[in-house]
Parts: sequence; structure tokens; C-alpha cells
Amino acid sequence: MERAASHAIDRLEALCREKQTRICVGLDPRLAELPEELVERYVRRWGRTREAAAAAFREFGRRILEAAAPYAAAVKLQSAFYEEYGPAGIAALEETIRFARALGLWVILDAKRGDIGSTAEAYSRAYLGEPELWGGGRPTPAADALTVHPYLGEEGLLPFVKTCRQYGRAVFILVRTSNPGADRLQNLLVQQTTRFYQVVAELVAELGRGGRGEEGFSDVGAVVAGTAPQEAAHLRALLPETFFLVPGYGAQGASPADVKAAFAPGGRGAIVNSSRGLIFAYRRDPYRKLCRGEEFEPAVAEAVRQMRDELKAALKCDNPSCRAAPAGEA
Amino acid sequence: MERAASHAIDRLEALCREKQTRICVGLDPRLAELPEELVERYVRRWGRTREAAAAAFREFGRRILEAAAPYAAAVKLQSAFYEEYGPAGIAALEETIRFARALGLWVILDAKRGDIGSTAEAYSRAYLGEPELWGGGRPTPAADALTVHPYLGEEGLLPFVKTCRQYGRAVFILVRTSNPGADRLQNLLVQQTTRFYQVVAELVAELGRGGRGEEGFSDVGAVVAGTAPQEAAHLRALLPETFFLVPGYGAQGASPADVKAAFAPGGRGAIVNSSRGLIFAYRRDPYRKLCRGEEFEPAVAEAVRQMRDELKAALKCDNPSCRAAPAGEA
Repeated sequence: MERAASHAIDRLEALCREKQTRICVGLDPRLAELPEELVERYVRRWGRTREAAAAAFREFGRRILEAAAPYAAAVKLQSAFYEEYGPAGIAALEETIRFARALGLWVILDAKRGDIGSTAEAYSRAYLGEPELWGGGRPTPAADALTVHPYLGEEGLLPFVKTCRQYGRAVFILVRTSNPGADRLQNLLVQQTTRFYQVVAELVAELGRGGRGEEGFSDVGAVVAGTAPQEAAHLRALLPETFFLVPGYGAQGASPADVKAAFAPGGRGAIVNSSRGLIFAYRRDPYRKLCRGEEFEPAVAEAVRQMRDELKAALKCDNPSCRAAPAGEA
Repeated sequence: MERAASHAIDRLEALCREKQTRICVGLDPRLAELPEELVERYVRRWGRTREAAAAAFREFGRRILEAAAPYAAAVKLQSAFYEEYGPAGIAALEETIRFARALGLWVILDAKRGDIGSTAEAYSRAYLGEPELWGGGRPTPAADALTVHPYLGEEGLLPFVKTCRQYGRAVFILVRTSNPGADRLQNLLVQQTTRFYQVVAELVAELGRGGRGEEGFSDVGAVVAGTAPQEAAHLRALLPETFFLVPGYGAQGASPADVKAAFAPGGRGAIVNSSRGLIFAYRRDPYRKLCRGEEFEPAVAEAVRQMRDELKAALKCDNPSCRAAPAGEA
């Protein structure tokens, strides 16, 4: 049985330092937005089948990851788009995870699972551990981390945490998400002075105890939106030892200054995700012109490089309008 | 493209009336609890592979569904156990859905998905609709209903609701779950006099408008635990037009009298799920003795029949200690 070689967040912090980047590339392969000629090549071969879609995802994922790898620390794969194509889609997802790991990227599976008891155990075995009664080596590496829903409370989270400790993986619990409607539930005032997301944050802190790595962060992370910088700053103060996965950058409206609030001192303890802003960069200016015929890689590489540099500059900036994190090693 | 032939909850209500049952069989194929000789038969053939596990799930699911079908209206498939075995597991899940529908059962996929925007659209296409760019017929029927997480708020639910309206499907939103730790988040007091789950319930009611069928219930349902009868009665009063999926029966502690609180007048508007209490009935008394050699079906059929009768009796009972629903057509 595979055992924890190391602490998942320690591996990520070391990788960010080494590559001098805090970027997570969100791989959301919406079939309708993939380069048409790429999809058509497989459709000509196999018709409008799930196998054709899965093959297109495999090629697209491989090419995006190769282009982005020099400038990114992590990749976040959106499970939904792969699940849409059934067994063939899942096989493509597994192969893409394997490929990302081979490139040295830290892999987050954004599947937003959440259930209790033995069901939560099954999910955590599926994506972070190894299947029950498995013999003779796992056919595909698990992800380094999985995103999970908090609504079921402690029984919904403990099985995932247990698997993280056993295999050296991490979870990111949804605390404050980046969609406008998140307010309605997550910002409800409870117990007079507390927001609902703070109660979830307390649970994150509790579950994180006992999972702290040498870098100072726990294997129980949190999803904290860059689009809500005040809440992000508040959560950073409440959760000094929690690593944040920060969505909402770019297309969803968060600026480098906004996401800065989610970082720990020294520009540590967080990575910032962008999905369509990076992987579909070849569809918009100024990146479009970098494409060479059907080769979209230069456009994607440039978009990732530029985001890395913007973020680096913001994290180092001393201007008070650039919130939080002082200049540091990042 | 497949179009809504009918309203999903209308179909379910009619089925419950016709078969005189309110039982939902929870198919949670935990590999370790399957009959050993069944699993070993496939392991001998294919080794301890994912394919062997998936084949065992396929046979187990088929036999359980055949045994339970005369006494149950619906089946709830727990996605996690199938996902654990990758593409082979997903293929087994699809085949089991197809088989359940052929038996005339109403199919709930308990996958507890929850995301926003185009990701939620992808999940809803995957499990309730049809994949993007699909041509020439869907290879497997979608489920009649999917369970979903509310934490992301409206943007996390609307795409699912839209797909339900288009294809004649339903969703069950997690409102009050059956695990002990649910209290900590779901029962938090917000706005002085309101529990958090009530705010989720308001969202359920809003989303349900426009989706009411001829039976009087919306295609936006709610998961409401049988283990919390006071909350269930409260939610029933708040949500008179919402169909409830009621977990927590039997193994988790809810009695027939407890789950009665979740029903609408006349014993309508809800189905009660039991998973391990039914599908693993052959492992415990008094059902164990009904097995004939390796044939576990008689034990499972008897457990489902007995639960159906218990529930029917409770729903008809006028004794005030049997809460809510007066004697009626159920």
C-alpha cells in the first residue's frame, strides 16, 4: 500500500518557491470552447461519440499542461467536464492526472464531493487513496488534493481528512466561494456577530489540527474567493495555518490586489486559480495573435507567464492599496 | 434531442400509488459487504482489478433490483462506490441505471454534486440531460433525479433546475441531512429566529416555483432526514409543494413514526430510503435464514416487503403518537 511520502502542502509550498509562481491552471475542457479543428479531427474518426470527446480532452489537456507547466505550480482539473462523457471521459481524466504529475505539477481534482460515513470514505479512496481490495499497484496516481463541500458537517469531512493523513494528500473545503449568490447563504449572520462561512472556517481549523506540515500549513485547506477580498482578509486572519485555493481571478473579476488578501505573510499559503482566462487565452486578444496556425500553445504559455508576473508583482508591492502580505520570498 | 415526456415527480407519485409503496432502495455496493463468493468469482477470473469489482457490482445490482422491484418505487444509487473503480465502475453504474429503468423503477443518482455556472451545467447534462454535441441517441438513460449540494447558493442550483424542466427530471437539494453532525451547521440560528436549513428551504421553494406537476409537487425536491422528525415536520409545513427524499430509516435510527412527519397529507409527497438495511439484509437476522445457498434474493425481497408494510401501516395510523399525515390513499 502506498504511504505518505511527504506532506502535500509542504510539497506545494516547496514547488511554488522553486518555480517562483503561485499560479494554478484551471483545466475546464468545455467541448464547445475547444479549438474546432482539434475536436473535428476526432469526430471525423469516431463520430460524435463520447470516445471522440474524450480523445479531444486528452490532447487538449496534454497540450495546455505542456504550455503552462513552466509558469504554474498546480493544475485544477474540473471533474464535471470529464464526467459528462462517461467511462471514456473518466479514462481521459485519469490519463490527464497522470500526465500532469509526470510534468511535476501539483494536481487538484475539483470534484466538489461531499457525503458522510462510508460514502465519504469511498470518495476519498477513489480520488486521494486507493480502491478497496486493490492489489498490485494503483493504475493511476491519485490527485494531490480534492475539493469538498462542508454542508454535511464534521462526518462529511473527517473521512477525507483521514485519507489525507494516510496518503499525504490534501483537501480544500469550500468556505467562501466566488459566485455572486454565495452571499445569500455563506454570509448569513449567525450567533449575532458571526457569518456562516466563519463557522465553516472554525471547522476547517479544527480538522486541520494535527495536519500541519513543516512549512506551517495544514493538509486541510480552504477555498476562499478572490472576488471577496474583505472576507478573504478576515479568513486569512482567522486561519493563519490554512492554505487557500483562490478562485475568481481574471474572468470572474478578482484583481492581483484583491487576491493578495488571501495570502499569508511573505506571499505564502495560497495559490490563485484561473481557468478560462488561461486555457482559452488563444480565443482573445492580445494572446490570439501568438497562435501559429493550429498551434495555440504560445498564446496559453504567454497568458500563464503574464499572470504569474502580475501576481508576483502584487505580492511584492508595498503600496498600501495592495493589501496584506508584505514583500517576501515569493 | 430527448424532450420532457412528463413531469418527474408526477411519474413518481403515480408509481407509488400504483405499487402501493413509498420505499426507495439505496444501492450502496460496498465491496467489502458484498457476498464473498460473488466477488471471488470475478476475482478468480480477472484478479483484484477494477474490472472485477465492477462486474461484481453489476451482478449484485441486478439481483438486488430484481428482488426489490415488486415492493419498491425507486432506487437510489450511491455514485461514490462506483466511482471508486474508475471507468469500469462508471460503466457498471450506467448499466445498473439502465437495468433499474427497464424494471420500471424511478432512479435517483445520489452523487451530491454542486458547482456553479458552466460546471453545474456540465454535471446536469451528464446525469439528467445529454452530453454536449451528442449525436445519434444517448447511450444510457439519465437518472430521473440527482441529489445536489446547496452551499454555493442559487448559481449552484439554477443550471440543474433548468435541465430538469427541459428533460422532465428532478433534483433533491440537501436541506436537513441525517448525520449527527448536521446540527452544527444546518441548525445554526440565523436572523434571530431562523435555522440555516430554513434559509436553504426558502431557496428550494423559490426554485420550485414554475415546476409544479399535476400531482401538486415540484420537480425541485429536498433531502430531509427521518432522524430529525421535528425539523421534518417543520419543513413539511414550510414546503407543502416539495417532494421529500427521506434518508435515515432503519440502520440510522429513524422509525416509521419518525419518517411520517416528512409526508404530505394522505401519505403523499415523500419516499423513504433505506440502504444497508435492505441490500445487506442477508447478513443479519431474521432475514439471513431466508437465503438459499448463495441466493440472497429471498432475504432482500422480504426485508423490502416488510419495510413497505411497516411504513404503510404507520402512514395509515390515527394514533397521535404517529405524527402528521392522516389516513389516506397510501
